[in-house]
Amino acid sequence: MLLTSSAAGVYVICPTPFDDSGRLDTASTDIMVEAFLKAGATGLTILGIMGEAPKLAAEESLAFAKQVISTVAGRVPVIVGVSAAGFAAMSALSAKVMNAGAAGVMIAPPSNLRTDDQIVSYYADAVEAIGPDVPFVIQDYPLVTNVVMTPKVIMRIIEQNPSCVMLKHEDWPGLDKITTLRRASDEGQSRRVSILCGNGGLFLPFEVERGADGAMTGYAYPEMLVGVVNLIKQGKRKEAHDLFDRHLPLVRYETQPNLGLAVRKYVLKRRGIIASDTLRKPGPKLSPETIADINWMMERIERSQEGA
Amino acid sequence: MLLTSSAAGVYVICPTPFDDSGRLDTASTDIMVEAFLKAGATGLTILGIMGEAPKLAAEESLAFAKQVISTVAGRVPVIVGVSAAGFAAMSALSAKVMNAGAAGVMIAPPSNLRTDDQIVSYYADAVEAIGPDVPFVIQDYPLVTNVVMTPKVIMRIIEQNPSCVMLKHEDWPGLDKITTLRRASDEGQSRRVSILCGNGGLFLPFEVERGADGAMTGYAYPEMLVGVVNLIKQGKRKEAHDLFDRHLPLVRYETQPNLGLAVRKYVLKRRGIIASDTLRKPGPKLSPETIADINWMMERIERSQEGA
Amino acid sequence: MLLTSSAAGVYVICPTPFDDSGRLDTASTDIMVEAFLKAGATGLTILGIMGEAPKLAAEESLAFAKQVISTVAGRVPVIVGVSAAGFAAMSALSAKVMNAGAAGVMIAPPSNLRTDDQIVSYYADAVEAIGPDVPFVIQDYPLVTNVVMTPKVIMRIIEQNPSCVMLKHEDWPGLDKITTLRRASDEGQSRRVSILCGNGGLFLPFEVERGADGAMTGYAYPEMLVGVVNLIKQGKRKEAHDLFDRHLPLVRYETQPNLGLAVRKYVLKRRGIIASDTLRKPGPKLSPETIADINWMMERIERSQEGA
Amino acid sequence: MLLTSSAAGVYVICPTPFDDSGRLDTASTDIMVEAFLKAGATGLTILGIMGEAPKLAAEESLAFAKQVISTVAGRVPVIVGVSAAGFAAMSALSAKVMNAGAAGVMIAPPSNLRTDDQIVSYYADAVEAIGPDVPFVIQDYPLVTNVVMTPKVIMRIIEQNPSCVMLKHEDWPGLDKITTLRRASDEGQSRRVSILCGNGGLFLPFEVERGADGAMTGYAYPEMLVGVVNLIKQGKRKEAHDLFDRHLPLVRYETQPNLGLAVRKYVLKRRGIIASDTLRKPGPKLSPETIADINWMMERIERSQEGA
Repeated sequence: MLLTSSAAGVYVICPTPFDDSGRLDTASTDIMVEAFLKAGATGLTILGIMGEAPKLAAEESLAFAKQVISTVAGRVPVIVGVSAAGFAAMSALSAKVMNAGAAGVMIAPPSNLRTDDQIVSYYADAVEAIGPDVPFVIQDYPLVTNVVMTPKVIMRIIEQNPSCVMLKHEDWPGLDKITTLRRASDEGQSRRVSILCGNGGLFLPFEVERGADGAMTGYAYPEMLVGVVNLIKQGKRKEAHDLFDRHLPLVRYETQPNLGLAVRKYVLKRRGIIASDTLRKPGPKLSPETIADINWMMERIERSQEGA
Repeated sequence: MLLTSSAAGVYVICPTPFDDSGRLDTASTDIMVEAFLKAGATGLTILGIMGEAPKLAAEESLAFAKQVISTVAGRVPVIVGVSAAGFAAMSALSAKVMNAGAAGVMIAPPSNLRTDDQIVSYYADAVEAIGPDVPFVIQDYPLVTNVVMTPKVIMRIIEQNPSCVMLKHEDWPGLDKITTLRRASDEGQSRRVSILCGNGGLFLPFEVERGADGAMTGYAYPEMLVGVVNLIKQGKRKEAHDLFDRHLPLVRYETQPNLGLAVRKYVLKRRGIIASDTLRKPGPKLSPETIADINWMMERIERSQEGA
Repeated sequence: MLLTSSAAGVYVICPTPFDDSGRLDTASTDIMVEAFLKAGATGLTILGIMGEAPKLAAEESLAFAKQVISTVAGRVPVIVGVSAAGFAAMSALSAKVMNAGAAGVMIAPPSNLRTDDQIVSYYADAVEAIGPDVPFVIQDYPLVTNVVMTPKVIMRIIEQNPSCVMLKHEDWPGLDKITTLRRASDEGQSRRVSILCGNGGLFLPFEVERGADGAMTGYAYPEMLVGVVNLIKQGKRKEAHDLFDRHLPLVRYETQPNLGLAVRKYVLKRRGIIASDTLRKPGPKLSPETIADINWMMERIERSQEGA
Repeated sequence: MLLTSSAAGVYVICPTPFDDSGRLDTASTDIMVEAFLKAGATGLTILGIMGEAPKLAAEESLAFAKQVISTVAGRVPVIVGVSAAGFAAMSALSAKVMNAGAAGVMIAPPSNLRTDDQIVSYYADAVEAIGPDVPFVIQDYPLVTNVVMTPKVIMRIIEQNPSCVMLKHEDWPGLDKITTLRRASDEGQSRRVSILCGNGGLFLPFEVERGADGAMTGYAYPEMLVGVVNLIKQGKRKEAHDLFDRHLPLVRYETQPNLGLAVRKYVLKRRGIIASDTLRKPGPKLSPETIADINWMMERIERSQEGA
């Protein structure tokens, strides 16, 4: 099953579960995959920034990807992050995961790119490296990559590379960018690709209202993301925002750079989805005060759900 | 009235009101000052990043500062941002505003500082430039300045400079930093200075719980900031979070880099606090879609207040 | 006398002379101007990055500019750097110096610009701020500004703004950029503007061979820059490189970030061109070892000149 | 043979030779190793930034390292760059190359480090990853890494990690840093480690005069680096500078960011040391004008050597 430009819904960004000693936790991986599918995920994305991909050895990345793909067993598409410092590593990982059954790959630009032409060239070279038949996702995340892509640049990449099927949108601010890109595809000035939004879901209901097809992000209650996307698509605006706003305090807490992933893993552990909230070094540890904050927010969310 | 290390409450970061043609709007300035005082501000801060300070000519900065100070007429302290590319300009502006009645000045580090010693030295030079009798605020805002100050560095600046009376804390993530700094002052390892939190108020209730003395930020409903700080201090945790969470959707929307100030000015205009939401170039303009988003959030906030 | 796109030769970047206490040294300013003109300068440029412009108060900048313009008394054009954090300050300084007799102004882009369109827009806004009749120079210095302009972007700025008459080229590597820009103007695809090269003159003979019209930089022996430009234009390639290479050790030593200006001022002081080598804070001080290095290089240069 | 803190002389930074199609060129690798040893190299360093390490797949890095180590066959120490985005990859590569006979490894800090403590911690974690028995080199290259290490920070790393045996110094400006570090070790305030200088050798004679033990860099005529280091150590200051200054035009040309490696490979090819000057993407191509510049400089160098 290859990724196509009609992808929609919620592609959950998966953390990489480790045991307390920092080794890959294969049992948790299976449990996590099932939990995310049960929550309504229409796809999974692994080995992204929030999957601690750079902290894995090459063999670990491949082993984790193979396990997830095998556990999913074709129920939904699996996208694998293959961003790398060089094209040889990108090409090698991409070939291996596509061979293992991945639906497509995701590529973020390296932080030294500056000009429009440099960005467009980079994606041309990347497509040459992974091959023109591998569906790929542009990751547009300037807060982390320090690379700013205008809508024009994104449309040039889409036009030049038929294998580009999706934009992972996490520019900030970014709502008008969605409006611009969707207007261009609606008016036939640009091929329509799927737009799924990241950035921790911080603006999700507005993003879907602007024309995004859903989310690709990793909040610890992915069923909320699924619910919001579905409610907006059903025209239930008030209900969508009500649901989202109940979770916003924790969503906001998870978007803290670096700390956010530790928060997310802690919540997933408390929810029984992974066994340990260990991050590999370098990574933050939660203080007792932070854990108390999170517990407070979880209780408020869970109490509000009972009332809802 | 000079600023002291016992400052607390909410120091509202004032935008600089312009008319539709981009000139200083003196009538709105007076109305805005009165509105913020009425909302419960215990201080005002002007000519910060969100006051479009770098877009003002030197004479305009001084004229605006003088007007605000004169309108406030001693009811609360007024802090003036004097961050500048060089010490000559900083010294000149600081002398003029202190002479006009400012309570203190605020200084953000220039973005080229890297090492701990460079940061400590910079503040020593800055104090030499403004004079040792002028109370000053350290602005710790790495997302914008790209300068990371550890608690140790902040404590070194506090120890070396008796005129340092306040930290404007807007590191991100930053809650544990407050805990660390407060523990150090509680345990007598560091002189206690006021800590007021910025960053759009995004973490305000937790920040006060960690030991911050209040907020120095510029949300368009400053009465909410005042209410949250007061409720936390009264031990009404649930009420504080309930109040804050009702506003969080808009708070979150205002924290969008660059766009946030345009959002804030629009809300202030709709609330009758300033006459025009004009920003000077370079600055974003709100799209119709963004305006619709804001209107939606304002309605939800105002409806929830009726129910509250 | 207004700056035109036929400007050529060597525009010496002037340091701002201070006395030992850091005050503007007006006597040295006059001596320096005469020394640079005697060395063969075809223009002078003041208040650039190497003129410590950001360290001057607004009134100091204007006083220094007026003195230089008045001392030059129309013998050569004087360009004034007006880069500023905001357009109000840029507009104010530009109006004042043009009124005082400057030939044109120089504008570097602010470091937050990323995309091609942002850069082009910025210069459109800057021209609106200074007025369409003021000749201006684009400063293209990515090592310092962190803004990368492609030849296409530079040509867009040239086409959109008839008052753009010069490029101060100091991209690095940059030789092929000169070739590309000159080919475009030779083939009629772009209006021809003057190209003067900065970057401490580190590649000067090659730059002129590629089509640059000369230098705009501030080496402590400006007569060498003048000699090299003239020899290349006379077709005396070997003599040009021989002359340049004798100075290259010191040119290289002057290109050290931050330290370079201190080196340059020290040499100018030893040559009797300025009275003090003081830099304003923040700025480096020369160690005894560094002074010994410079003395060694000066002796070798001066001995080689005797032999030449 | 393990690397020790008494290492001195010239450790040549080796490029990675590719054939015209971009594959590892094993024949050239052997020829290059012999040529560098014949030129007087006292060590070799591979898989650094100028070795295009990030562009190699993991298996290629290992294969290249094994070949070089095997060809060197213990004649000099071989240092391998193991900088990586994560500790798992660093640990894996380090173990493999040490097992294959490397003398030590070199580690550059990742570009997101800011504070003194972050840098010190990073090296503690890195030592944990590679093991405390593997001799390692700190690479201090702020122009590329964007990480600024004060002498104090370097000394903290040296004190905390007995396996730290060398500093690859390429800060810029950096001469006073060598003086400070050497004074500290001479006065017993810091353990003495080897200091070898990089940065293309641009300041080599001064660096050795300040107390560096030699060079670790990759100029295309490594025999010049060897000659300069030896002459300075013999007290022949004038001869050392004369030799260096004859090469300085090309040294300067090679220090152009990104382009420099293409220049170096071209010269090595013309000198018969590698068969192809191919760089892997993304990488620059030399224009005909640039090739003509290099040829001009090579002729001048080679003519001057005849005269010398």
